[in-house]
Amino acid sequence: MTTTIDAIRRQVSDLHQELVRYGLVVWTAGNVSARVPGEDLLVIKPSGVPYEELSPENMIVCDLDGNVVEGKHSPSSDTAAHAYVYRHRPDVGGVVHTHSTYACAWAARGEAVPCVLTAMADEFGAEIPIGPFALIGDDSIGRGIVETLDGHRSPAVLMKSHGVFTIGKDAKAAVKAAVMCEDVARTVHISRQLGEPLPIAQADIDSLNDRYQNVYGQRPAAAQ
Amino acid sequence: MTTTIDAIRRQVSDLHQELVRYGLVVWTAGNVSARVPGEDLLVIKPSGVPYEELSPENMIVCDLDGNVVEGKHSPSSDTAAHAYVYRHRPDVGGVVHTHSTYACAWAARGEAVPCVLTAMADEFGAEIPIGPFALIGDDSIGRGIVETLDGHRSPAVLMKSHGVFTIGKDAKAAVKAAVMCEDVARTVHISRQLGEPLPIAQADIDSLNDRYQNVYGQRPAAAQ
Amino acid sequence: MTTTIDAIRRQVSDLHQELVRYGLVVWTAGNVSARVPGEDLLVIKPSGVPYEELSPENMIVCDLDGNVVEGKHSPSSDTAAHAYVYRHRPDVGGVVHTHSTYACAWAARGEAVPCVLTAMADEFGAEIPIGPFALIGDDSIGRGIVETLDGHRSPAVLMKSHGVFTIGKDAKAAVKAAVMCEDVARTVHISRQLGEPLPIAQADIDSLNDRYQNVYGQRPAAAQ
Amino acid sequence: MTTTIDAIRRQVSDLHQELVRYGLVVWTAGNVSARVPGEDLLVIKPSGVPYEELSPENMIVCDLDGNVVEGKHSPSSDTAAHAYVYRHRPDVGGVVHTHSTYACAWAARGEAVPCVLTAMADEFGAEIPIGPFALIGDDSIGRGIVETLDGHRSPAVLMKSHGVFTIGKDAKAAVKAAVMCEDVARTVHISRQLGEPLPIAQADIDSLNDRYQNVYGQRPAAAQ
Repeated sequence: MTTTIDAIRRQVSDLHQELVRYGLVVWTAGNVSARVPGEDLLVIKPSGVPYEELSPENMIVCDLDGNVVEGKHSPSSDTAAHAYVYRHRPDVGGVVHTHSTYACAWAARGEAVPCVLTAMADEFGAEIPIGPFALIGDDSIGRGIVETLDGHRSPAVLMKSHGVFTIGKDAKAAVKAAVMCEDVARTVHISRQLGEPLPIAQADIDSLNDRYQNVYGQRPAAAQ
Repeated sequence: MTTTIDAIRRQVSDLHQELVRYGLVVWTAGNVSARVPGEDLLVIKPSGVPYEELSPENMIVCDLDGNVVEGKHSPSSDTAAHAYVYRHRPDVGGVVHTHSTYACAWAARGEAVPCVLTAMADEFGAEIPIGPFALIGDDSIGRGIVETLDGHRSPAVLMKSHGVFTIGKDAKAAVKAAVMCEDVARTVHISRQLGEPLPIAQADIDSLNDRYQNVYGQRPAAAQ
Repeated sequence: MTTTIDAIRRQVSDLHQELVRYGLVVWTAGNVSARVPGEDLLVIKPSGVPYEELSPENMIVCDLDGNVVEGKHSPSSDTAAHAYVYRHRPDVGGVVHTHSTYACAWAARGEAVPCVLTAMADEFGAEIPIGPFALIGDDSIGRGIVETLDGHRSPAVLMKSHGVFTIGKDAKAAVKAAVMCEDVARTVHISRQLGEPLPIAQADIDSLNDRYQNVYGQRPAAAQ
Repeated sequence: MTTTIDAIRRQVSDLHQELVRYGLVVWTAGNVSARVPGEDLLVIKPSGVPYEELSPENMIVCDLDGNVVEGKHSPSSDTAAHAYVYRHRPDVGGVVHTHSTYACAWAARGEAVPCVLTAMADEFGAEIPIGPFALIGDDSIGRGIVETLDGHRSPAVLMKSHGVFTIGKDAKAAVKAAVMCEDVARTVHISRQLGEPLPIAQADIDSLNDRYQNVYGQRPAAAQ
């Protein structure tokens, strides 16, 4: 088990650098976690540590109630939300939270991002939905994430007036969803500044999503 | 021939870094290809490999029907579109595909970018046109590119609800067209946010384009 | 005392790199200062020196009237404003001034940034207020900062037609406020481009701010 | 004289990197030149050479009619415009040309950038004016620059449907003007997206500009 946790610690630490590279975070406002396969444990960012000081060693290991099992720092203040997702979605192996600019701009208006790009049909298969306004401190945020994404193709949810949470089969998939979420939130926003983007027919969205998720899904490396 | 292919592999691999440098791509969503001069072959990005892991060695060699001739990975999922262009446009030596933000914003509304900057007259000689909505999986995308650019001065086409394809006499010229396409799509978008950009008279567009493409064309290194 | 001043010189020099990293400044237009604890002194950027040439050695030490105590260069032309703040706010240990883009865009219209994101409630606890139009050359800017922030939760003020000043218990906290100020000014601006952001109830703002500032405040490292 | 020209070659080569660093240029579309003090010569970028391949050695030396005196490449295609400025403005020691995004967005509408920020009053002392539409190939662009800036405080002019030219006592001052021009064009654009920026009284603009240009001008290193 130690070997697995060590690998997960490294992966979670490294993936935070992707959030920085893609401009999804400022200061310390964003975090990645991963489930430890086969254990009721998750690995998450320590609270308040700058991204350039993250290392496998200072990642925090928690149980699925968010209690610290290993780690010198406090875990991210968003740990309860991550933990809730892992408890209620056994298929989820990674969770990401950011306040990325364009996604938050939609979230601040409480508006879903409409599916008007073929890349959105591929990755999200639908609009990126809006979750409820929820205060930190209890299960409200986690529950809002799980209830909004229940039965939805999108791996991303815009929590109203707050930010983005994404899920994936592992942490890398959740990070990819966070990167693509900001990318399409930005492109659709900019498109709408000068008029209404054209709708894509539901049958075409379904066909694109099916091909991308299933046909490509049969090979190890999906995507372009 | 091996020497030529090796040189083309290196060029295609290197040119992907320009897409990253100019911010035209996120994750793995964009690709460059080049025709192998004198052969019915093309070199293209492998599918799903991150840009920082690209090398001459992992580029994929395909025939002009998109079948893999050399390579361990699958070729880009856009290979069929690239191959269609090479089969129908013998003058084309390079093709680029991106989902760059501002170009996609115009594409999502199905609107051409009007030619209102002297730099656009130089490089594109006209508006950047809109191609049809086309699903991946058959020749629709490739045919849409070729039919839209047929007889058009622009080396770039905005495929509706999808993204940008650019062509060039070689892969570097196609990359330059992709960079300039995003640059002018951004500038014209921003200009239009606060009013209507001034038109440029057709005779002036013609004169600028002729000078840039032909007068400069007589020397090896064009552009400023 | 020399040891303390040396540490403060290094901190102030280093923190200017954060302004660069987060894109808050161009050329030489922005500055950080820190109070020297237990002394009537402040350390500030030299005037007109590029950020990449800053070092602990070329920082300027001034008294709290802005007179140079140590340093070969002139101090920042904004020194009088920084000094005024330290004289009138003994709780303040750091001051930052920038012309960051989105914050200045609000300042140019004389409009406060409304508190419509949970991250704003956390960090600012209220709107980011507008201070008066004030010319450089006397105490007008300093007085405008102090009077606007008096009794306000926000550590940032948008000086009308000018730029941003932020305060903090130390220079790092003031830099964090400058980074977060631009981040929320940008997100709220973008959100408002396509409609009105949803308000957050005052009781929820109060609750979020209290938790973030006080509950987290009990541990050494606050924030996510 | 060789020593002076060598120093100017180095300065012009280095200053192009500032255009890249501040995001004012893509591909090869922008150039810096400097007058050789005491000689009827200028040093300018070679045409079509990427910024990362510029060096003091490949800079081009021209006379003030734009004829090449030293250099293996062709000089920038904008050399005639630079040369015209040096012939008609003996006070000018440096010229910069870019197609920077926000400045071009104003230029495409043929609109001057209004002076609504104190930093604009400092640097430009007035609106950034619009010059005529002019085709490349004769003296039209150079004459448009000189006539528009004649008697104007601004060191920057937006050439209609084209781009920006800036002047300075030396090349570094012209580069600074190009950087500040894009910065204020961006900030004022963004401000105007959500309403009208507040005007600054002419007397205040005059006072700010006088202080910045003259009071600071007495010391070697101006600016904050």
